[in-house]
Amino acid sequence: MTTTLNGQSLINGEWIAGTEGDVRAVDPSTEENLDPVFTLIGPDQLDDATRAAEQAFPEYSATEPGARARFLDRIADNLDACRQDVVDRARRETGLTEARLNGELTRTANQLRLFAGVVRSGAFHRVRIDPAQPDRAPAPRADIRQRMVPLGPVAVFGASNFPLAFSTAGGDTASALAAGCPVVFKAHNAHPGTAELVAQAIHEAVTQEGLPGGTFSLVYGPGAKIGQRLVADPRITAVGFTGSRSGGLAIARTAFERPSPIPVYAEMSSINPVIVLPGALGSAASLAEAFVGSVTGSSGQLCTQPGLVFVPEGPGGDDFVNRAVEHIDASSGQTMLTPSIATSWASGVENLSGQDGVDVIARGGDGEGANAPGPVLFRTDAETFLANGELQKEIFGAASLIVRYAEPSRLEELITALEGQLTVTVQAAPSDRDDVATLLPRLERLAGRVLYGGWPTGVEVGHAMVHGGPFPATSDARTTSVGTLAIERFLRPVAYQDLPEDLLPAPASDANPWSVGQSVDGK
Amino acid sequence: MTTTLNGQSLINGEWIAGTEGDVRAVDPSTEENLDPVFTLIGPDQLDDATRAAEQAFPEYSATEPGARARFLDRIADNLDACRQDVVDRARRETGLTEARLNGELTRTANQLRLFAGVVRSGAFHRVRIDPAQPDRAPAPRADIRQRMVPLGPVAVFGASNFPLAFSTAGGDTASALAAGCPVVFKAHNAHPGTAELVAQAIHEAVTQEGLPGGTFSLVYGPGAKIGQRLVADPRITAVGFTGSRSGGLAIARTAFERPSPIPVYAEMSSINPVIVLPGALGSAASLAEAFVGSVTGSSGQLCTQPGLVFVPEGPGGDDFVNRAVEHIDASSGQTMLTPSIATSWASGVENLSGQDGVDVIARGGDGEGANAPGPVLFRTDAETFLANGELQKEIFGAASLIVRYAEPSRLEELITALEGQLTVTVQAAPSDRDDVATLLPRLERLAGRVLYGGWPTGVEVGHAMVHGGPFPATSDARTTSVGTLAIERFLRPVAYQDLPEDLLPAPASDANPWSVGQSVDGK
Repeated sequence: MTTTLNGQSLINGEWIAGTEGDVRAVDPSTEENLDPVFTLIGPDQLDDATRAAEQAFPEYSATEPGARARFLDRIADNLDACRQDVVDRARRETGLTEARLNGELTRTANQLRLFAGVVRSGAFHRVRIDPAQPDRAPAPRADIRQRMVPLGPVAVFGASNFPLAFSTAGGDTASALAAGCPVVFKAHNAHPGTAELVAQAIHEAVTQEGLPGGTFSLVYGPGAKIGQRLVADPRITAVGFTGSRSGGLAIARTAFERPSPIPVYAEMSSINPVIVLPGALGSAASLAEAFVGSVTGSSGQLCTQPGLVFVPEGPGGDDFVNRAVEHIDASSGQTMLTPSIATSWASGVENLSGQDGVDVIARGGDGEGANAPGPVLFRTDAETFLANGELQKEIFGAASLIVRYAEPSRLEELITALEGQLTVTVQAAPSDRDDVATLLPRLERLAGRVLYGGWPTGVEVGHAMVHGGPFPATSDARTTSVGTLAIERFLRPVAYQDLPEDLLPAPASDANPWSVGQSVDGK
Repeated sequence: MTTTLNGQSLINGEWIAGTEGDVRAVDPSTEENLDPVFTLIGPDQLDDATRAAEQAFPEYSATEPGARARFLDRIADNLDACRQDVVDRARRETGLTEARLNGELTRTANQLRLFAGVVRSGAFHRVRIDPAQPDRAPAPRADIRQRMVPLGPVAVFGASNFPLAFSTAGGDTASALAAGCPVVFKAHNAHPGTAELVAQAIHEAVTQEGLPGGTFSLVYGPGAKIGQRLVADPRITAVGFTGSRSGGLAIARTAFERPSPIPVYAEMSSINPVIVLPGALGSAASLAEAFVGSVTGSSGQLCTQPGLVFVPEGPGGDDFVNRAVEHIDASSGQTMLTPSIATSWASGVENLSGQDGVDVIARGGDGEGANAPGPVLFRTDAETFLANGELQKEIFGAASLIVRYAEPSRLEELITALEGQLTVTVQAAPSDRDDVATLLPRLERLAGRVLYGGWPTGVEVGHAMVHGGPFPATSDARTTSVGTLAIERFLRPVAYQDLPEDLLPAPASDANPWSVGQSVDGK
C-alpha cells in the first residue's frame, strides 16, 4: 500500500481530482498549511459517487457472511499496516497526541473486527418464521418469514473530533458496511490527509476482495454545499453524522424535505451531567481529580465530556469544588482541533461568563503553540440554572459548569429541566442508594447511558454500549452510534409469504446455510 | 360493563363532555345521522389527557410482566364480552358486514393476547450484557448492560377503514401498551360510537387492574386541529397513524418541527402491485376470480388492496384480463365507509379515466343504498404507465389498473419506477423461477412484504409479519404496524454502566427475576 497523499477523491474505485476548488489541512498548533492540496468535487462528481454506490448495492448487499466479514477484517489489517503514517498525519492535522491517536486507531480497527464478528454470527438478520398452518380454521395460515435487509447506499459524515473512530472507517462506516450498505463518505476538511490514508486502506480491501468500486467512496467537497446535496441525493437511503447541533439539524431537515425522506442518525449535542450525591464526597479529592481529567482530556473535545456537575452545598461539596479549582488552575491548555473550534469554544466561554449568577472559579494556563486555551470551570446555583436555558448550551472543549444544590430532593426538578443527553453519571456511595433509586427512572428518560461512578468520556465499543440518547443528543434516540446495535440503523424488515425454499433468502430458508438464529413462532 | 353510549371523551379515567362543538356518526348506507351526539374536546381538555398520560408513565412503565400482560388480556376479554354491541354499532357506522366485523373483533382481541404473550416472554427487552473485565489491559472494562425502555406517552390515531383492528384497541395501541407506554387515542370521527364501546372495554381493564387513569385516554376532537395539537404536545413521545398520505405527511411535519422532534409511524399509501408471470396464466380463470375478490372485498378499502397488476401480453394474459372483466362487470358495489371516502374514490376513478392511454375495461353495478359504487377495472400498457406518475396514485376503494407488459425482461424497469409499497405479489409457476430470482432483490427494496402466490389483502397477525415498507407506504420503513415487531417502535435502548445489582432494572440484573433472555458478550 502506498501512503503518498494524492489529494483526490475516491469515486467508484478511482482517484479523481475535484473540479470545485481546493482545501489544505492546517496544523492547529502552528496554523501552518500542510501539503498536499486537496481538490473538492462538484455536483456531477458527487452524482458519480452515489451512482456507483447504487450500482454496487446489489452485489455488495448479497455478499455472503464470510466474504463481508473478511472485507471488514482486511480494512482493519490494512489500517494496522499503515498505522504510523496515519497517526503521524492525524497528529499534524488535529493536534491530538500520538498516544490518543494510537489508541483511536486500535479502537477503529477493533471496531471493524467486532462488526466482522457480528456479520459472521448473523444475529442481525433477526429471522422470524411463522410456519404455514394449512389446516387452521377458519382460514389456513401462510408461511411467513421475516428478516432484516440493508437499506441501500449510506452517506457518512466525518467528525472533527475523532479523525479515525468516527470518521472514514469509523463506527458509522463499519456498521453500514456490516449491514450490507455501500458508503459514500464525506471527509471532514479539517483532516483530509488522514481521511485519504484511511480510504486507501479501505480501497485496498475492496480490491483485495474483488468488491465493486462503488462499495466505498471518499469525497472532499465544499462543506455544507456538497454535504446537503449528498443527503438530498435520491440514491442515498440513510445518513450517519457526528458533529454540531446546527449541522445535524440542517441535515435532518434536508432529509425530511426530500420527496422520499430518509433516516438521519445525527449525534449532535450533549453536556453529560454528573450528579454528585453526598455519599460520594467521602473521596472528594480523588473524585475532583478524576473529574478534571475527564473535563480536560483531548482538550475537552469529546461528545461525552462532562460539562455540567451537580454538587451538594455544604463542606463536603466545598471540598470537591475547591480541589477541582486547584486542578483546573494547575492545568494548561492542549491544542484544539482547529482554529475555528478554538474560536467557538472561546465564544461559548465568554457567553457563559456573562450570564447573571455564573462565576468563573478556575482557569488553567494557555498551552504552548496556537489554539491551546486554558480549561475553565464555572459555578452557579440551582435557581440560576433552572431560570436560564443558556446555561445548558454545550461548550465544545475544556469547560464545565458546577451547579450547587441544597439537597437530593431538589435533583428531580433539576434533571427534569435538562435537554436529552448522551450520558448521565451518578457519583454515589451505598448510603445514597434510595436517592439513586428514586432518580433512576428520570435518568433513563434523560440519556442513552447511565453511569454509576466512573466518567462518561470512555465509550467502550461492545455489544451493550449505547452512544445515543434523546434529542438533542441525537436526532434519533431509538439507536446508538457506538456498539454492535448500531448495525440496525441501516436495516429494515421484510416479510416473505409462501416463497418456495429455493427462492428464500439464505438466512430465512429452512436450509439456513449461514446457520443464523431463527425464531419460530416467537420462540 | 355498560354499553350505553355517553358521547364523551375518556380523560384520566373520567368521562368528560367536550367544549368544542360536537359530531354525530353517519350511517353511510342511508346517510342518516346516528345517536348520540359526541362532544369534541378543546385544547385544555387535550392537555388534561396528555398530562394524565405523562403522570401515568412512571407507574405504568414499571408494571411487571405479569400485570401488564394481564391488563392486555383483560382488554381482550372485555372486548369479547361486548362483541355483539360493538359489531352492531360498527356495522351501522361503517357499512362493513357483520362477518367482516366479527372477524376484525376476533383479530383485535387476539392481537392483544399476542402482545400479552410478548410481554410475558420478555424478548423485547433485548438485554445485552458485557461483563466487567477488571484485569483487561491497557484499561479495565466496566460492566455495561443494555435494555430497551419505553419512550413515554404515545398518540394513536384511529383508521377509517378498520374501526377495530387499527383503531381504539388496535395494533398501535396494543403494541404501545405492551411496550409500557400510556396511550392517548384520537378517535376517527367516522366511527365514534365504536371507539367509545372499545374504550369502555379498555377503561374497565384499567380499573380492574388498578392502573393509573392516564394509562389510556380516548379523545374526540375537531379532526386535524386537535390532532395536530396532540402531535405537537411536548409530553407525547411517538405517534401511530393509519390513514391518508396527506394526513400522514401533515403529522410527520408537525412532529419534525417540534422543538424536540419525535418518531411518527404513519401507514399511508400503497397500491400493492401484483406481478403476473407467464407460468401463472395456466390457471388464469381461478387467478382472475381471486384477483377480483381481493380488489372488491371490504369495498376495496384495505391498505393492501391490489390496485396495480402487471399482466403479460398475449393470449394467456388476454384470458386473465377477460375473465377479470367478466367478474368485475358481474360485481356490485358495497357500501363504502363514509360519503367522503366514496366521493374521493369517485374523483380518483375520474382522474385515472381521464389519463391518456388508460381505458376503463369493466365496471360493476352500483350496490343498494347510498355510497356503494360499482368496482372499476382499468387497463393501460407499460409505456403509458412509465410515462405518467398519475397512474401510481392510490384510489382508495374497489378499483385496479392492469398494465400489460411484453415480456418479463421489462419488469425490472417497471418495478424500479414504482414508489414504495406495503406489499408486492408475484403470481408464478415453477417455470418462472429464474425471472422471480432476478426480480427478488428489486421486490425487497420496493415493499415490506413479498408474496409468492396468494393475495395481499390478508394481513396475518404474527411474529414474522411486516405491514410496513418504504415511503410513501409508510413514513418509517424500519418497522411494521402489524405483528409483534411493532412493539419496537415504542422502545429505545439504554445502557447502564457499573450499576450495582440492587439498582439494576429487573430484566438487566443478574437475578433476572422475569427470566428474560440475556445476551452476554454478544452470545
